[in-house]
Amino acid sequence: MTRAAMQTASQSELQIVRSVADLRRQVGAMRGRGESVALVPTMGALHDGHLALIRHARRRCRHVVASLFVNPKQFDRPDDLAAYPRDEAGDREQLAANGCDLLFAPGVAQMYPAGFATSVNVAQVTEPLEGAHRPGHFAGVATVVAKLLLQCLPDVAAFGEKDYQQLITIQRMVRDLDIPVEIDGVPTVREADGLALSSRNRRLSADARARAAEIHAVLTDSADALADGRGSAATILAKGRARLGRAGFEPIDYLDLRAADDLTQLDRADRPARLLVAAWLDGVRLIDNVPVVPARR
Amino acid sequence: MTRAAMQTASQSELQIVRSVADLRRQVGAMRGRGESVALVPTMGALHDGHLALIRHARRRCRHVVASLFVNPKQFDRPDDLAAYPRDEAGDREQLAANGCDLLFAPGVAQMYPAGFATSVNVAQVTEPLEGAHRPGHFAGVATVVAKLLLQCLPDVAAFGEKDYQQLITIQRMVRDLDIPVEIDGVPTVREADGLALSSRNRRLSADARARAAEIHAVLTDSADALADGRGSAATILAKGRARLGRAGFEPIDYLDLRAADDLTQLDRADRPARLLVAAWLDGVRLIDNVPVVPARR
Repeated sequence: MTRAAMQTASQSELQIVRSVADLRRQVGAMRGRGESVALVPTMGALHDGHLALIRHARRRCRHVVASLFVNPKQFDRPDDLAAYPRDEAGDREQLAANGCDLLFAPGVAQMYPAGFATSVNVAQVTEPLEGAHRPGHFAGVATVVAKLLLQCLPDVAAFGEKDYQQLITIQRMVRDLDIPVEIDGVPTVREADGLALSSRNRRLSADARARAAEIHAVLTDSADALADGRGSAATILAKGRARLGRAGFEPIDYLDLRAADDLTQLDRADRPARLLVAAWLDGVRLIDNVPVVPARR
Repeated sequence: MTRAAMQTASQSELQIVRSVADLRRQVGAMRGRGESVALVPTMGALHDGHLALIRHARRRCRHVVASLFVNPKQFDRPDDLAAYPRDEAGDREQLAANGCDLLFAPGVAQMYPAGFATSVNVAQVTEPLEGAHRPGHFAGVATVVAKLLLQCLPDVAAFGEKDYQQLITIQRMVRDLDIPVEIDGVPTVREADGLALSSRNRRLSADARARAAEIHAVLTDSADALADGRGSAATILAKGRARLGRAGFEPIDYLDLRAADDLTQLDRADRPARLLVAAWLDGVRLIDNVPVVPARR
């Protein structure tokens, strides 16, 4: 088969289900053949960052299920929900071309039927950073991810490190509630200039887009300085914030050094750490993070 | 085999596990043989009410797993937790004699490891009745039951109608989070005089025990009057409360007519309903409930 023919064959295999019953029937058939299943939850508007998750899932398991659900419960601002990009036809093509077997694309009534009254709340790791700026966001994320995991019961589920606090929150929830699944974090995919891929990047003006990569440059330079112990974290982070300000980021919600495992605040990188940032550029809120690996001396 | 020999043989089959890993190994072996599994969560101090759950589970599935865990998160008062009766040796004998295969009896550190930060919260159905009198109780119940269901992944789990609001809460949680299990409610087991079995009954003085059955007499008489439409619910319930007061119940936390499915307050029994009561007798808090089936005329 030619590559084009293979791609066509692969594309024709993407099945779409919209109910939990149909999802379970399809996944049950995979399981009945003793085959492993990975889940990649998405809110659609797929870009290369999502496709990296799909390819990661493909390497981990025989089957890849993607979900597409723009979860109203995790939006703290109605305008952000209304502006969220949607392109199911485009998403389907990209999923098929990257080896996804099955797309679960439920409607809101399927996920939150009348009388829906349950929420999953993770304390501690959700309190700083995004949690302090987006009230209710992580309860919305934890609730929908718990549902998706229990609807599909995959062996593995993959989430991007781009939303690092979300990844840590989901890992904590899965451990605490004994959800029988392995949660994999997948490294952030970046543009050539370092800007992390995000569906929100589409909202940047050309001028803002040209300046947006400064957020990654500040992260990597600050992380290097923190790892080398060049001065106190307070000083290094103050310089980083000033540099973001000069590049036009305003306001800066946070630029914080945190423990990699439980997100407690650190004043030096004396254990595995993460440097996380959220800042607004030209009306668009960008978030990003990088690891800070303590230098061994 | 004689009955005694059978009972001995049956007793020798009760296996005990204390870790989630061992529980999953045992249940996995049952599943591997294509056999069904029912779970009966308990806090121990077993009486005939619990054994009715075990026997119900036995009729529903090939294997019966019981759990024994006195869950600190669902006690709103430390003295109530400290006073909760514990008798694992006696519980094991009764489980074995009633056809339970496997007992999961984890310690607190197994259920709530360091850094535990997640809670499951069910709104609406948890707000009145017990929820109004025991802050945090149902979050503790929902969290531990979610964990037990996900640790064991049974086909069926059985809960007593004695704790009717708990049963409704668990059914709502299971539906909302898509936990793949069927929740069965099992009718309350009563003493000859009508008193619902409860591990708390042991705390009643002989005099209080003699008067305790009045709570059930008031429930059944009031339920009959409500079902027949003999006057308004307000009048019937006021009479019931007065009668409880004359029998020495003080305070009466509630005597309420509620919809059977979502526990909304009703002022007449014009749909399937439940009459629920909580009242103190001689320092012991008793709860009970009965169905109210609207009369067809």
